[in-house]
Amino acid sequence: MSLKYLHTMIRVKNLDKTMAFFELLGLKETRRHENEKGRFSLIFMAAPRDEDCPVELTYNWDGDDALPSDSRHFGHLAYETNDIYALCHTLMDAGVVINRPPHDGRMAFVRSPDNISVELLQAGEPQAPAEPWISMGNTGHW
Amino acid sequence: MSLKYLHTMIRVKNLDKTMAFFELLGLKETRRHENEKGRFSLIFMAAPRDEDCPVELTYNWDGDDALPSDSRHFGHLAYETNDIYALCHTLMDAGVVINRPPHDGRMAFVRSPDNISVELLQAGEPQAPAEPWISMGNTGHW
Repeated sequence: MSLKYLHTMIRVKNLDKTMAFFELLGLKETRRHENEKGRFSLIFMAAPRDEDCPVELTYNWDGDDALPSDSRHFGHLAYETNDIYALCHTLMDAGVVINRPPHDGRMAFVRSPDNISVELLQAGEPQAPAEPWISMGNTGHW
Repeated sequence: MSLKYLHTMIRVKNLDKTMAFFELLGLKETRRHENEKGRFSLIFMAAPRDEDCPVELTYNWDGDDALPSDSRHFGHLAYETNDIYALCHTLMDAGVVINRPPHDGRMAFVRSPDNISVELLQAGEPQAPAEPWISMGNTGHW
């Protein structure tokens, strides 16, 4: 038997807010399935040249009360970026809290609008520690 | 900026049970990091020839009380297999409940020991519907 990874799926309460969040990270919609009978939408998003590893957003049109506001059960989605400082600036400028700023030039954590934890890692060697990240405290957990 | 998917991380209560579960699916340990000071282990597991898309298991040596027993917040991990019937038989023989049997020869859902939902999809065309799956009812949700 052979096995191949396809995607990670997460449920979202507000599709627009969540898609805007992942677009800030650099993901684009690659595929969409609207199910009128089941009243849900499935949206696949991936980074350019990384379409084989999408995140799948499940949006139930009539809401999804079973969604907890926070979950430590699911860990996180991780993405590698070639410039963690530029990415964190983009996120911060858009009002996203940098829960774990990249103090070390290497790793940061943020949360999606549904509090899904997202890890960001600098590709290759860490960048030199720099402000405003060095002085920025942690916020919450991730 | 460029972005690349790295892994999905999930927290586990019992590392042996969870690794045994993912080994049943066909994943192998590809990388491990033991942190004595932080008292946690990180184990990366991936299918052969699919090492670029691992699942990361986080195991806290002193337990992790924040783990809910079930979570609809996180969706699922999805894996494609070349024989969904053989894989479901392997899982069933090992005592894993097939929450959503592959009635349609195409899709099944199971749960990890921490109730992490795992989707299994037949690669390519669905197989012809077959017993025991046709007659097998659903169990719980996924």
